[in-house]
Amino acid sequence: MQIWSSSGTPRSSGFPVMLVLAPPTLHENYFQPDKLGFGRYFSNHMIDIDWDVKEGWFPPKIRPFQNFSIHPAAKALHYAQQIFEGLKAYYGVDGKIRVFRPELNMERMRRTARRATLPDFNTREALLLIDELIRVDADMVPKTDQASLYIRPMMFATDQNLGIGESSQVKWACFTAITGSYFNYDRGIRLLADPEMVRSWKGGVGQYKMGCNYAPTIFVGKMAAMHGCDQAMWLSGEDRLVTEAGAMNLFMLWTNEENELELITPPTDSGLLLPGITRQTVLELAREWDLMKVSETNFTMSQLVRAVREKRVHEFFVSGTAANVGPVSEILYCDKEREIMEKLHIPTMSSNMQFHKRLHSTLSDIHYGRIEKKEWQRIVEL
Amino acid sequence: MQIWSSSGTPRSSGFPVMLVLAPPTLHENYFQPDKLGFGRYFSNHMIDIDWDVKEGWFPPKIRPFQNFSIHPAAKALHYAQQIFEGLKAYYGVDGKIRVFRPELNMERMRRTARRATLPDFNTREALLLIDELIRVDADMVPKTDQASLYIRPMMFATDQNLGIGESSQVKWACFTAITGSYFNYDRGIRLLADPEMVRSWKGGVGQYKMGCNYAPTIFVGKMAAMHGCDQAMWLSGEDRLVTEAGAMNLFMLWTNEENELELITPPTDSGLLLPGITRQTVLELAREWDLMKVSETNFTMSQLVRAVREKRVHEFFVSGTAANVGPVSEILYCDKEREIMEKLHIPTMSSNMQFHKRLHSTLSDIHYGRIEKKEWQRIVEL
Repeated sequence: MQIWSSSGTPRSSGFPVMLVLAPPTLHENYFQPDKLGFGRYFSNHMIDIDWDVKEGWFPPKIRPFQNFSIHPAAKALHYAQQIFEGLKAYYGVDGKIRVFRPELNMERMRRTARRATLPDFNTREALLLIDELIRVDADMVPKTDQASLYIRPMMFATDQNLGIGESSQVKWACFTAITGSYFNYDRGIRLLADPEMVRSWKGGVGQYKMGCNYAPTIFVGKMAAMHGCDQAMWLSGEDRLVTEAGAMNLFMLWTNEENELELITPPTDSGLLLPGITRQTVLELAREWDLMKVSETNFTMSQLVRAVREKRVHEFFVSGTAANVGPVSEILYCDKEREIMEKLHIPTMSSNMQFHKRLHSTLSDIHYGRIEKKEWQRIVEL
Repeated sequence: MQIWSSSGTPRSSGFPVMLVLAPPTLHENYFQPDKLGFGRYFSNHMIDIDWDVKEGWFPPKIRPFQNFSIHPAAKALHYAQQIFEGLKAYYGVDGKIRVFRPELNMERMRRTARRATLPDFNTREALLLIDELIRVDADMVPKTDQASLYIRPMMFATDQNLGIGESSQVKWACFTAITGSYFNYDRGIRLLADPEMVRSWKGGVGQYKMGCNYAPTIFVGKMAAMHGCDQAMWLSGEDRLVTEAGAMNLFMLWTNEENELELITPPTDSGLLLPGITRQTVLELAREWDLMKVSETNFTMSQLVRAVREKRVHEFFVSGTAANVGPVSEILYCDKEREIMEKLHIPTMSSNMQFHKRLHSTLSDIHYGRIEKKEWQRIVEL
């Protein structure tokens, strides 16, 4: 395994990094969580590390947030040779800044890098660097539980030739964005399920956080919006397995065909969906609480339709770092065989149990330090 | 349809463009076709045009070839919101510079842009701009029929936020590379056919020239190289349809199951493969020559295997702008059911007919102006 070079100035973490500081700037919207939106206001610094096939990783830099200078032939711009991650830091009720399970993001990023034929890196060093980045911009972590600091690590190919092949030059970077909530959850999320729009397939890269999984979804998201929906719900294969929604995982709380109360989400071993960290956390919490059967099992669109008709679906929700847990209130299904658009009402918002709310508030309590769960909370020492 | 803004200095073409000239530089390898490789030596200028959702297209610029300044959150770097094209200009035996069927590339780029939710543009204006770019760097079009000027138009999203959605800011650019041959054709190309590696799927974007189609293939290309092969041959679906090889289309000249001599290539209406311009040209030439049945019909891996065993495959070749027409001499088939790697020898190099060579030399004759075919040759007036 390759590790980052350890020259540069030692920092408080003990990990050396070259540091170039920017003058502080604070946008007025930073203090108005409802105006932040997602990923629009950036903090002042970023991590920037170059790699080349001969030298390996160059010393990491933390420098002012600024444009990249990219060669016109860089593979990142032609062949989508690019990967990313998304995680968050939260300002806790005790004044401590916590990052939620970042080691899982770094491990996933390394798995993605392997599939993308991008270089490996050291998880521990990446975490120390992200700590350092947050420390430098600590004032920009919003002091409210309505917002957070979204962290965006990325790696992309910068080499200067048009051949389609393994890259000899790469950049690893990370910046942060002061971020509010992703959805308006008051009315519930509406999903468009169209079997002709397919996100991933067997033999593809649906389980990796590669940039290439996202571009084709933009058109589909636009179609969803034209139908009054917030996101697409992705179906896969002839039997129309329900896999994901937008760029999020999904869960259904239902009374299954064996008359059991069950929290169900599709399994990741199909390779069709991203193994989300919020997904994993929801599964772990639900298993810990032991209020219902918890299953990672495929279900089809026709199972879902039947269950909705028989009033066996109690809650349906999405999960993701940007969205936390978000209730789904409606699925619009393009049933091509029957040539109809069927509107499936999902009673998530009015369910007695409000299981998604319990998950949302528990996650939020852990994020903002109202509940201690040390192994999920990486504290950034200031 | 949106057109490019028409301010700027009128040029000899009558089409206005802002022009900033660079000092000429000529790399010594420009004169040694066998050292050029593909897409490694760039000429001195590039086209650069910005678009935003409010203003539309800004005036086109031709400026010195140099790095882009790209915002770290640009969708091109995270969600693969990027498309490209590839075409070539050739220095003819009569001293004229010809571009091969560029209007087909621009039409395909516009179709791709539509699927990618990137802005439309005007084919005629794009062609005039590319003419102008070639004119400015006319000295860099190699004066040999062993090399050419590869032209790379591209469009990518530059807006400065992380939301996954339609872009409000975009860049259209085009640069050129002095290019030699893509393969060494003396020994024939070897392909690796592994049904577990899938390039495209129904409901996806395999028929568009979006960057996202390429990143997942880099790993597969590496696997192919580890098996001593030059490229992957892509199979699709349960019945293992033969679709493409590397980033190229493919053709088989065989005696089919009805005992007819047939040139066969998979059809593009499946949406699984790129409608190549060299592919279209090969089909048009073969139909004009009328030496055999010419079919756009699917064929499966098992049909291919059987035909090889029965010595009914005479030639197998790939086609593409970079590769022209390239003979395939071997297909290494990972047959998972039988748990074997089967080496299929294809007698392309020793076939009596040498049909691929006739295609290659006819294409080359048209490229370099030894044959006149006006509707395929766009002459750049100097």
